[in-house]
Amino acid sequence: MTKLFNKVAIIGTGLIGGSIALDIKRRKLAKKVIGVSRRKKSLLLAKRLGAIDYGSREIDIIKGADLVIMAAPVSTILNLANPISKSLTRDCLVTDVGSTKKEIVAKLEKIFPYYVGSHPLAGSEKRGVVHACANIFKDSLCILTPTKNTNPKALSKIKKLWTQLGAKVKFLSPGEHDKILSFVSHLPHIIAFSLISSIPSSYLSFASTGLKDTTRIAASDSEIWRDIFFSNQKNVLKGIRLFQKNLVKIKSALRRNDKNLLTQILKKAKSKRETLG
Amino acid sequence: MTKLFNKVAIIGTGLIGGSIALDIKRRKLAKKVIGVSRRKKSLLLAKRLGAIDYGSREIDIIKGADLVIMAAPVSTILNLANPISKSLTRDCLVTDVGSTKKEIVAKLEKIFPYYVGSHPLAGSEKRGVVHACANIFKDSLCILTPTKNTNPKALSKIKKLWTQLGAKVKFLSPGEHDKILSFVSHLPHIIAFSLISSIPSSYLSFASTGLKDTTRIAASDSEIWRDIFFSNQKNVLKGIRLFQKNLVKIKSALRRNDKNLLTQILKKAKSKRETLG
Repeated sequence: MTKLFNKVAIIGTGLIGGSIALDIKRRKLAKKVIGVSRRKKSLLLAKRLGAIDYGSREIDIIKGADLVIMAAPVSTILNLANPISKSLTRDCLVTDVGSTKKEIVAKLEKIFPYYVGSHPLAGSEKRGVVHACANIFKDSLCILTPTKNTNPKALSKIKKLWTQLGAKVKFLSPGEHDKILSFVSHLPHIIAFSLISSIPSSYLSFASTGLKDTTRIAASDSEIWRDIFFSNQKNVLKGIRLFQKNLVKIKSALRRNDKNLLTQILKKAKSKRETLG
Repeated sequence: MTKLFNKVAIIGTGLIGGSIALDIKRRKLAKKVIGVSRRKKSLLLAKRLGAIDYGSREIDIIKGADLVIMAAPVSTILNLANPISKSLTRDCLVTDVGSTKKEIVAKLEKIFPYYVGSHPLAGSEKRGVVHACANIFKDSLCILTPTKNTNPKALSKIKKLWTQLGAKVKFLSPGEHDKILSFVSHLPHIIAFSLISSIPSSYLSFASTGLKDTTRIAASDSEIWRDIFFSNQKNVLKGIRLFQKNLVKIKSALRRNDKNLLTQILKKAKSKRETLG
């Protein structure tokens, strides 16, 4: 059977990159999977886990790839796009898994003729190939962000890749993606970081599941998330302002002893949350 | 073997009351466990689950009890204290599991000579005896809030009860309790309610685990939580103000493109969250 790809290069063998690599290997979607990372340890572990055939800290290793997946923090994706392009032929398929898309897509689609932006909504607050695991994309959502410049064949092949990894694929424009994600992902991170910052340390031993769940994602990597926030600055600021308004509504109802209004707000919030499952 | 109690009356056979009843039955800590609830269905289910020996909607049924556990929302505990006292002898041990303690303890210790305030940090956003289950207190924390008026024998017996249910018991004054809980429990609820209120409904289909975890507790019962917020109004408002300040710090760093400051704030938040486990 012909494989979907010949040589797949994963730039960044962390939680997401490592998991993609594992899945491609296990499902035999490519003849070879190679990894690039700044960290030797990450490459060694990725190889031991069977996620990659071999790896290197040198970008040169990607020569001859027919698919490159950039699975690095937003700023690294932006910084590596040009250096990487020098090792690739023009017909190489390129995608990335960055958490923001407008800035990345604008830059990468100019550099790579066969580029498609991806954002798999999977992963966790953990980091590193040590947490990689097969099947994390099964039944997850993967957003692709084609533009009028996107090559249709590239789009269909990248869609096929994610579908074969088990993801449900949806298309959004890069702008729509960033607007939606600023609310469903970036704002919750801002809030979790703010919330844990507000808890006096000496009270933490009294924390139960409520505080733990609401702040779990505050254990996420600081630099990855700083990058995401700045790369989606305008939308994130808008989200914060809307959140502030809603918080003030609850605060005023509480301060003014308006039991009816507060009940109303909480009831509406509860039924909205219940639709999330 | 003599049992710890003869007749235990549980006022409110919901998630917490039902779970306590189940545990007391299974561990054979009482000869009889009876339940009082406004809802016939809840009593029937509690009986079928083996949580109570029998139940009634009439408070009179608690006559002869040597332990009464009030497992109802804060306002119900406050409202039922006087009516309940009429069916009890003066030497009956009384406790409650209300989420705020200052208001409740102040009232109940005047009514019941052998009263001790309890707050088991267990439970979830779910409600009803249908979600009750044995062993939910195992390895959980239970805060007791004795005052200078608390009878030492009552305190030691209530402590023994929670210890036998598997909980680790800590003592706090009612005021300390409410201050600490306003941060580790009430504030996260306020934030979760505000956050889900801020997400446009049409974006909810793009939610992944981050948003789901940060807002899980917004599915909590609106009236129970309205009661808690008002019963701990001053502390909750203080917590909100502190949270607002921390959110504004993050927002300003983002707005002013201060990458170093934002990284610093996120790093500090991350390492604080990591101590929570």
